[in-house]
Amino acid sequence: MDIEGLRGRRITVVEVGPRDGLQNEKVTIGTGDKVAFVDALTDSGVPVIEVSAFVNPKRVPQMADAADVFARIRRAPNTRYSALVPNLAGLDRAASAGVHEIAIFAASSESFSRANINQGIEESFANYSGVAKRAHSMGMRVRGYLSTVFGCPYEGEVPVERVTELTARMLDMGVFEVAVSDTIGIAHPGQVASVLETIGRKLPIDRIALHFHDTRGTALANVLVAITMGVSTFDASAGGLGGCPYAPGASGNLATEDLLYMLDGLGVQTGVSLDAVFQASSLLASKLDHPLPSRYVQARRASNRP
Amino acid sequence: MDIEGLRGRRITVVEVGPRDGLQNEKVTIGTGDKVAFVDALTDSGVPVIEVSAFVNPKRVPQMADAADVFARIRRAPNTRYSALVPNLAGLDRAASAGVHEIAIFAASSESFSRANINQGIEESFANYSGVAKRAHSMGMRVRGYLSTVFGCPYEGEVPVERVTELTARMLDMGVFEVAVSDTIGIAHPGQVASVLETIGRKLPIDRIALHFHDTRGTALANVLVAITMGVSTFDASAGGLGGCPYAPGASGNLATEDLLYMLDGLGVQTGVSLDAVFQASSLLASKLDHPLPSRYVQARRASNRP
Repeated sequence: MDIEGLRGRRITVVEVGPRDGLQNEKVTIGTGDKVAFVDALTDSGVPVIEVSAFVNPKRVPQMADAADVFARIRRAPNTRYSALVPNLAGLDRAASAGVHEIAIFAASSESFSRANINQGIEESFANYSGVAKRAHSMGMRVRGYLSTVFGCPYEGEVPVERVTELTARMLDMGVFEVAVSDTIGIAHPGQVASVLETIGRKLPIDRIALHFHDTRGTALANVLVAITMGVSTFDASAGGLGGCPYAPGASGNLATEDLLYMLDGLGVQTGVSLDAVFQASSLLASKLDHPLPSRYVQARRASNRP
Repeated sequence: MDIEGLRGRRITVVEVGPRDGLQNEKVTIGTGDKVAFVDALTDSGVPVIEVSAFVNPKRVPQMADAADVFARIRRAPNTRYSALVPNLAGLDRAASAGVHEIAIFAASSESFSRANINQGIEESFANYSGVAKRAHSMGMRVRGYLSTVFGCPYEGEVPVERVTELTARMLDMGVFEVAVSDTIGIAHPGQVASVLETIGRKLPIDRIALHFHDTRGTALANVLVAITMGVSTFDASAGGLGGCPYAPGASGNLATEDLLYMLDGLGVQTGVSLDAVFQASSLLASKLDHPLPSRYVQARRASNRP
């Protein structure tokens, strides 16, 4: 493995803590705290922040203040601020809130799609196709998530041919990038290599991002394999928000700090300050009902370095 | 990175849970529980188990029953059972207990050596040289640990030239293998690659084992880099024993289960059953004052699979 050859490579970190992270936290976080969190993330230099989701507030109360958050955050010129949007109604709310980039969220397994968004895969793609079309007509960028790629909690293994086909269909919708996602944190490096190889035979690898959870401790090893195979965009959540190490079913988003600790050590360029992300996640630490799951954060707190 | 090329590679897992793991647990574990733990590990197929340490019982009360544990464990013909030995007195106790393989523990930073074993590096090497000589004269195998290779809690960075020189001196003592150790869990893949490259220029890489702690979440990524660079022996601790995710200063040994989850996924051969290691660490789970730190164990327990 040519580790030295990675030095100077440029990697884009997509910060999903304010959305994917907080959405999965049980404690309600106040709008002011969310705004301060996003502003601190802006200061870290992270190029993309998924700020919130324009979803049904009854289903996801934590995201009910999406428009307020967007109204109050400070927007830096070189930072992209995106929002998850499930349907046309959500898209309209996002547009009114001044959102310029959205993300749509499809699954690669039928059971998970039905359980998560109450639509089958085909129905969801028809819906997202309409969402993407209208979003593009408004000049928005559209990102796609494809979940349960490395395994489904209901169906187990997901055929990589289906993953490739659904990724291709998302790209055909004009989605600029598909975040191939390990929803249950089950991916290991051998699987990452084989899935990327199959996808890469049919699709341009620079349109693929990866979204890992660190549920089984493999996330950084997975990232390393993916980087050497040409992937250059990774999702991560400040502090590891969204996964609770103490609770059953902990899902454990890959922590931005853990990712940056490895990437900095590899000499990979991200433009993001690890210290500043640590400061950002520290703002939320006292508001949660559990310590931040990030290993880097836990080690740094244990050594009492502020 | 040639991940597919790793399929079929043979890796030796050295199980250090009963020694390095339990030694760092605050709760006293009964001798019977330790014996049951080691016997369950034997059943997992792991080829080497570091069973205990013949150290000063006043300094390390958890290891006071070393001779009893060795007397009571069931020894399988193809499993090696080793013990940490700090000096000639410890060696004699080990020999009386029927130990055939010992490990000596030196540091690569002066301050850590003094803090940990109350001897400077030179003094400790003089001592270990005598220990190794007498052990060899009794037909024992001797393994070496070299700690703080990737960073010292007191001195920070440790020059890799010193690490290489001390490793060479250990090999000159007739040590069959040196476990190059990341005592404070600070190593990242970039550093692992650069340290191994420097060591490998002067010393045979098949005499190097690696000992990681997962303090910052990088352990599996480090292992992956090391495997691709030719290292084929890795230390790990069942359940991640020895590191507490809840306590300040958590050191977090790489968990055997987490290591096996990745290695199994890579198609690497270890001869060890992940299920059986999980069963072994489960024996101890209820005796500790914290959950087992292994991510695999936590995920499996969360999903309620026995």
